[in-house]
Amino acid sequence: MAKEIFMFEEGNKELKALLGGKGANLSEMTRIGLPVPYGFIITSEVCVDYMKQGEEVVEKLKDDILESLIKVEDKVGKSFAASENTLLVSVRSGAKISMPGMMDTILDLGLNDNNVEGFSEQFNDRRFAYDCYRRLIQMFGNVVMGIEHDRFEEVLTAIKKEKKIKYDIEFSIEDLKNIIVEYKKLVKNATGREFPQDPYEQLFMAIKSVFESWNNKRAITYRKLNNIPDDLGTAVNIQMMVYGNKNDISATGVAFSRSPSTGEKKLYGEYLKNAQGEDVVAGIRTPREINEMEKEFPGIYNQLKGISQKLELHYKDVQDMEFTVMDGKLYMLQTRNGKRTADAAIKVAVDFVKEGIIDKKNAIRRIDPELLIKIMHSRISPNAKKINRVIAKGLPASPGAAIGEVVFTADKAELLGKKGKKVILVRIETTPDDINGLAQAEGILTARGGMTSHAAVVARGMGKPCVAGCNELEIDLKEKIAKVGDVTFKSGDIITLDGGSGELYLGEVATIEPNLSEEAKLLLEWADEFRKLGVMANADTPFDAKKARSNGAEGIGLCRTEHMFFEKERLEFVQKMIMAGSKKDRIKYLDELEKFQIKDFQGIFEAMDGLSVTIRLLDPPLHEFLPKKDKIKDQIGFELKRHNIDKVKYLEKMLKKLDALQEVNPMLGHRGVRLGIVYKEIYEMQIRAIFIALIKRPDIKIKLGIMVPLVADINEFTVIKDLAKRIELEEIPHSGRKIEYEIGTMIELPRACMVADEIGKEAEFFSFGTNDLTQTTFGFSRDDAEGKFLHYYLENKILERDPFQTIDVKGVGALMKIAIEKGRNIKTDIKIGVCGEHGGDIESIDFFNEIGLDYVSCSPYRVPVARLSAARAEIG
Amino acid sequence: MAKEIFMFEEGNKELKALLGGKGANLSEMTRIGLPVPYGFIITSEVCVDYMKQGEEVVEKLKDDILESLIKVEDKVGKSFAASENTLLVSVRSGAKISMPGMMDTILDLGLNDNNVEGFSEQFNDRRFAYDCYRRLIQMFGNVVMGIEHDRFEEVLTAIKKEKKIKYDIEFSIEDLKNIIVEYKKLVKNATGREFPQDPYEQLFMAIKSVFESWNNKRAITYRKLNNIPDDLGTAVNIQMMVYGNKNDISATGVAFSRSPSTGEKKLYGEYLKNAQGEDVVAGIRTPREINEMEKEFPGIYNQLKGISQKLELHYKDVQDMEFTVMDGKLYMLQTRNGKRTADAAIKVAVDFVKEGIIDKKNAIRRIDPELLIKIMHSRISPNAKKINRVIAKGLPASPGAAIGEVVFTADKAELLGKKGKKVILVRIETTPDDINGLAQAEGILTARGGMTSHAAVVARGMGKPCVAGCNELEIDLKEKIAKVGDVTFKSGDIITLDGGSGELYLGEVATIEPNLSEEAKLLLEWADEFRKLGVMANADTPFDAKKARSNGAEGIGLCRTEHMFFEKERLEFVQKMIMAGSKKDRIKYLDELEKFQIKDFQGIFEAMDGLSVTIRLLDPPLHEFLPKKDKIKDQIGFELKRHNIDKVKYLEKMLKKLDALQEVNPMLGHRGVRLGIVYKEIYEMQIRAIFIALIKRPDIKIKLGIMVPLVADINEFTVIKDLAKRIELEEIPHSGRKIEYEIGTMIELPRACMVADEIGKEAEFFSFGTNDLTQTTFGFSRDDAEGKFLHYYLENKILERDPFQTIDVKGVGALMKIAIEKGRNIKTDIKIGVCGEHGGDIESIDFFNEIGLDYVSCSPYRVPVARLSAARAEIG
Repeated sequence: MAKEIFMFEEGNKELKALLGGKGANLSEMTRIGLPVPYGFIITSEVCVDYMKQGEEVVEKLKDDILESLIKVEDKVGKSFAASENTLLVSVRSGAKISMPGMMDTILDLGLNDNNVEGFSEQFNDRRFAYDCYRRLIQMFGNVVMGIEHDRFEEVLTAIKKEKKIKYDIEFSIEDLKNIIVEYKKLVKNATGREFPQDPYEQLFMAIKSVFESWNNKRAITYRKLNNIPDDLGTAVNIQMMVYGNKNDISATGVAFSRSPSTGEKKLYGEYLKNAQGEDVVAGIRTPREINEMEKEFPGIYNQLKGISQKLELHYKDVQDMEFTVMDGKLYMLQTRNGKRTADAAIKVAVDFVKEGIIDKKNAIRRIDPELLIKIMHSRISPNAKKINRVIAKGLPASPGAAIGEVVFTADKAELLGKKGKKVILVRIETTPDDINGLAQAEGILTARGGMTSHAAVVARGMGKPCVAGCNELEIDLKEKIAKVGDVTFKSGDIITLDGGSGELYLGEVATIEPNLSEEAKLLLEWADEFRKLGVMANADTPFDAKKARSNGAEGIGLCRTEHMFFEKERLEFVQKMIMAGSKKDRIKYLDELEKFQIKDFQGIFEAMDGLSVTIRLLDPPLHEFLPKKDKIKDQIGFELKRHNIDKVKYLEKMLKKLDALQEVNPMLGHRGVRLGIVYKEIYEMQIRAIFIALIKRPDIKIKLGIMVPLVADINEFTVIKDLAKRIELEEIPHSGRKIEYEIGTMIELPRACMVADEIGKEAEFFSFGTNDLTQTTFGFSRDDAEGKFLHYYLENKILERDPFQTIDVKGVGALMKIAIEKGRNIKTDIKIGVCGEHGGDIESIDFFNEIGLDYVSCSPYRVPVARLSAARAEIG
Repeated sequence: MAKEIFMFEEGNKELKALLGGKGANLSEMTRIGLPVPYGFIITSEVCVDYMKQGEEVVEKLKDDILESLIKVEDKVGKSFAASENTLLVSVRSGAKISMPGMMDTILDLGLNDNNVEGFSEQFNDRRFAYDCYRRLIQMFGNVVMGIEHDRFEEVLTAIKKEKKIKYDIEFSIEDLKNIIVEYKKLVKNATGREFPQDPYEQLFMAIKSVFESWNNKRAITYRKLNNIPDDLGTAVNIQMMVYGNKNDISATGVAFSRSPSTGEKKLYGEYLKNAQGEDVVAGIRTPREINEMEKEFPGIYNQLKGISQKLELHYKDVQDMEFTVMDGKLYMLQTRNGKRTADAAIKVAVDFVKEGIIDKKNAIRRIDPELLIKIMHSRISPNAKKINRVIAKGLPASPGAAIGEVVFTADKAELLGKKGKKVILVRIETTPDDINGLAQAEGILTARGGMTSHAAVVARGMGKPCVAGCNELEIDLKEKIAKVGDVTFKSGDIITLDGGSGELYLGEVATIEPNLSEEAKLLLEWADEFRKLGVMANADTPFDAKKARSNGAEGIGLCRTEHMFFEKERLEFVQKMIMAGSKKDRIKYLDELEKFQIKDFQGIFEAMDGLSVTIRLLDPPLHEFLPKKDKIKDQIGFELKRHNIDKVKYLEKMLKKLDALQEVNPMLGHRGVRLGIVYKEIYEMQIRAIFIALIKRPDIKIKLGIMVPLVADINEFTVIKDLAKRIELEEIPHSGRKIEYEIGTMIELPRACMVADEIGKEAEFFSFGTNDLTQTTFGFSRDDAEGKFLHYYLENKILERDPFQTIDVKGVGALMKIAIEKGRNIKTDIKIGVCGEHGGDIESIDFFNEIGLDYVSCSPYRVPVARLSAARAEIG
């Protein structure tokens, strides 16, 4: 049988799956000689058994647990359940993957009516001992025996009222004894059972309770949200208690070896003097910054700093530590790799390379490319900062600017958020129960809690802006209003917060475009050293083109021309062109459009001077450029009232045209090259405009590509290629400018994949349009699938993942492989890329790299993601 | 250089490509000793050169032509261009593939002012000689020099008027001389050139004219209609003239060795005494039946019968012969394989096997499977014959019943026909200029012309009903009315004609379902001996199932259940089921539908007892079962007026539901297995109904298949397979009946092809749905392509053929091959078929046989076509 219990010195950091993260790291710290209160761990495998077989699993293990407990007693020189020199223990959960606050913890375990006095003697502090006992009954009653927290608070409140006192600290020993009596009555009334006086009973009940907490609702939700498997189970840590709340030379705190917010290299964290650990994490009291400790406990501070550095080098990562000081002595209660913002993650990875701790490849491997999106926080515009008044300032708990309407409850945030409203969740403090609202909010604002409070940690994890511990903020939940100084805002009002500075504004404040940090740029340069896959951008405007370029795109892999057609001043000509009765008429309006297109292309060429630009000819069906039927009908009604007969006639003609163009399945209709073949004059105009744009700007150098969409047969492609060659002859030779270009095709239909050898004879490049290819391969359109059954399919695991997000390797991917093989068989060096949305998806890029594509083309914003992903795909 | 001129004895029947059909067969007849007027042939290769290089080709060949002409002079003992013992020749076109009446013919070539008298002495008939000369000028002027036929007729009419005569025959020699003078003036006026007096000039002009006629409009249209390549060219036949119009022991005629209408074994045809060949073919005079010749010219008749039998055995096919009798001597002017009706073709092929002329394989090879559709003529119901009055009777020129509205011009027939109207073209006689109208008409009725008249020949070729030579019919083209006896009908009136009996009815007369002839059944039995491919039918009703069975289907390969849902009494429940707010409600209505479905399936099982039935679960999206939006709105208006508030509410709910179900691309939407997964209760009902139907009828034996549509992923299939297994367990074990079934899937999406190995692990059969597979492979829907660009694509040869008609081998076919390979790799004996419309397409069946499918499933009506095609595919 596998080992079921590990004493701390028996484990190590590699055993996370078995011992949980907390247990493995407590073991590791013990092994490397750090001051850790002694204890042992029951493995997560026992939890898995427990889930299957129930309580008997713990029953069978009782002897082994008691044996381990004796080892602890021997080591620390105290006795569990004894009335003198009493050993108290904590019982904590700890899974392979951290689920902070999701599962159970019980402290002070081992106290009872008999030994509380003895315990008090040991500490020489009866008040402290009775308070511990009171806390044990409350925590045990709540966590293990399932009595609502509020019912204990009611007892406290009643006695406070009676005694006319305000704070817990004011309770006398007699008060505490009374509370203990009342608490025990409460336990009996609520559960029909006595609070267990037997410390061993307490212990085993607590262990079972920790196992059961693996399947509590919060934990299940958290796992679902974070894609954590349900069958891992949790380990149980049983450890000697130490007390940060013992006296004024005691304290408790958390510390990061570097800033989890910015990555700055300095000890970062908070502590509370004379307090227990839960007080910090829960965010109930606002703690002090860790650097203040340097003055208050200089020796402890330096010891902690040393341990921090040692652990960081040992783990080669930023450490998030929990510690307690008791009687002026430091105890380490936990260490783990610290969660951090995307900014911090990148800065730390880059700094670690600079400091020689890890190499470039490791740095690249460490950064989830999606983080590059997260660091592109929008920020409050510097101008706006001058104009707008900061109404309050809290802690800058998670960077980025957020604008939204105020909501005061998580449920409201969830409700409105799901409807697509932008909301800011404003809370005194947040708890794990608020997770649904946090997930839907644009940003979070809390009145209490520090940089490591629940709200702050969760917000950073989600990459959402958060201002925490904004002490000036007074919230009236009943009236649903909040006040800061002289300013009041209510539910539904718009506020803006800046999680990078902690500042709060009333109303909507202007923000500016995000940019990559210097560290991110450096990391991407390293990525460029390793990647083989080219990274281009999909850009239709000079603005997007510039963005793409500044994000490191090597060119434009897809310039969609239809977006140009939709622009206001062109749309009228586009519509007249569509409604033209004859080719001659159509050409008249196309001539007008040509002038615009020349300018469009010039703008893009300018932005991409020196790089490559691949322009796709018009793709969507013509009816998309006409107004909707109802809209035309409404306008006819309007014009009729005004007796504007000519306009009415025109609109009626438009309605007729719309009917004539109507399609049953527009996605499978008259679009792409089919349009360009039947209305050759449209493609002719576009190709001519492209050439003329380049002729007019001899100063610009562009590697030009012309791309034909939706080709299913080589003949379609050849018709357009011949057209291009003809226009080339008409425009280029006499212009005096030398223009070279490649003409290629989208591969976005299964048939194109199957005849890619034929197409490859004529086409100079292929670009996979994986959106359309996915639609036709699966036979469902994105629009129709998403509204109707795709959600069901994903939820019920009929499809593993959304094929419109991540390339479907088995189907679409297999077709791509066929096309690549056929294409390269005909033309070894044919350039092959992808320009569907999958071009910016991390997993898809991995696949594209594997099948030997030459480049991906994606949204300008995702270019950094693609660069990093391509490098990760290559270095593995 | 290739041989450019062949004397008749130098050619043979194998040289059709070079000598044209007419020339090759004249050569063959010469070689086997039949009486053929001597002559020679200029090859079609010369015509091809002529088309490229123009007149010089003939110039260069002049000497060779003259040499050949001398050979003819020597053989027949007459001299071309001489004024005594004058040789006249005919110059006729003749291409590899017969194009009757499409190209030029010139007769009596070689006459001029100088030799007409000498020619007359030779025949001892001056009237005849001058008439020949008159005919030459007219024909040459029209055909070679391009003067309209009518202008010559005007000359004749003027002289008739002046002389107060009615018929050509009444012209005196002086009249004819006058006409010749007038004709020559006409030629000079119309063309600026004299009618050429030099016989050699006549000859060379005529040869060039024949070459040029290859590219006249009529010929081009004919070739397009009949898929004849444009680059074949025509040969030119130059042959000594013989005269069927010389005297009363002269005649001209056409004869078939068997009836081209029924295939009956007897000499069949017509002749005209004292007439030239063109008179028969043009249908201007109604000739006598050939059997009358037995009395009138018994010697000639027997000689002809002997030649007919000899030729039939020699060619191993029915012969269509032209002959002339001059001075009581028989001359064969042409023989060729006779065009025939589909009925005749099948009877002849079967009879030839019985007579030992050809073997079964040859008979199968000879019959284009489409003929099996053509012989399924609808016929006038025997009952209708009793009730309806026959208003007139003509010749039964081409079998079948036709009902349609009367039109009197080909153009009108084309116009209405293209709009989808059923029209009967009523003409005095038809000419090649009417071809556009003939192509669009349901049936043809002529007042003049025999069984071999233009109308009759063309109608038989097209498989259209035709009543020809209905002499009682008087047509007034100006008033657009026609009269037979006391009955008058006008343009737009409905008439019915029976091409099998020659009978004509006013109005629409009841027709009956067509059946296969005994010969066709025999031929299909032979086909079954050779074919490997199974032939199933797509049938949704007991009626169709019976039809399929009687046409020889081995089972139902596709039973679509949606058609059952549309039936009147169910549709209400279907709609209520769709509109149900909850699953519970939905199940309530599904329970009602289940009762209907059980009956539906029982009916089909009954019809197919002993055979296999494969039922496809519901495929179309639910909104297809609701009325159209406008219709609901109209009904709301109607019910509002009646204050039927409940109904209005229901309709408004329906409108909402319709909106909710709306799809952008229904073809790519929530249908097929996607529907069955999200609304499992629908498939559950269907599967249960199938099992119960079989349980209720233990007397019936069915090889049952359940088929899941639109599967893209194995998980989709497994969900439904599991469902079926569950229902099986619920229904079958306790029923006492043993039911075995196979559960398989449609392969109709590219992805299904790519993952056919995975699907093959679970599915027991595959059935390719080639309609959907074609749509998704090409990325265009049939509906949208056909209206918008497919026509353009086919006309401009961007696609060689309509992929919805004939399987696209390169794309769709390649995907099918992948699926078959993957499927059989996993399960060697997995049954694989096809049930798209391609299952009944001849060429597609060829491909399906080649790639090793197990069966095709097609429309019940196409089952015979599929059986024959499958055999032809196998025997090659």
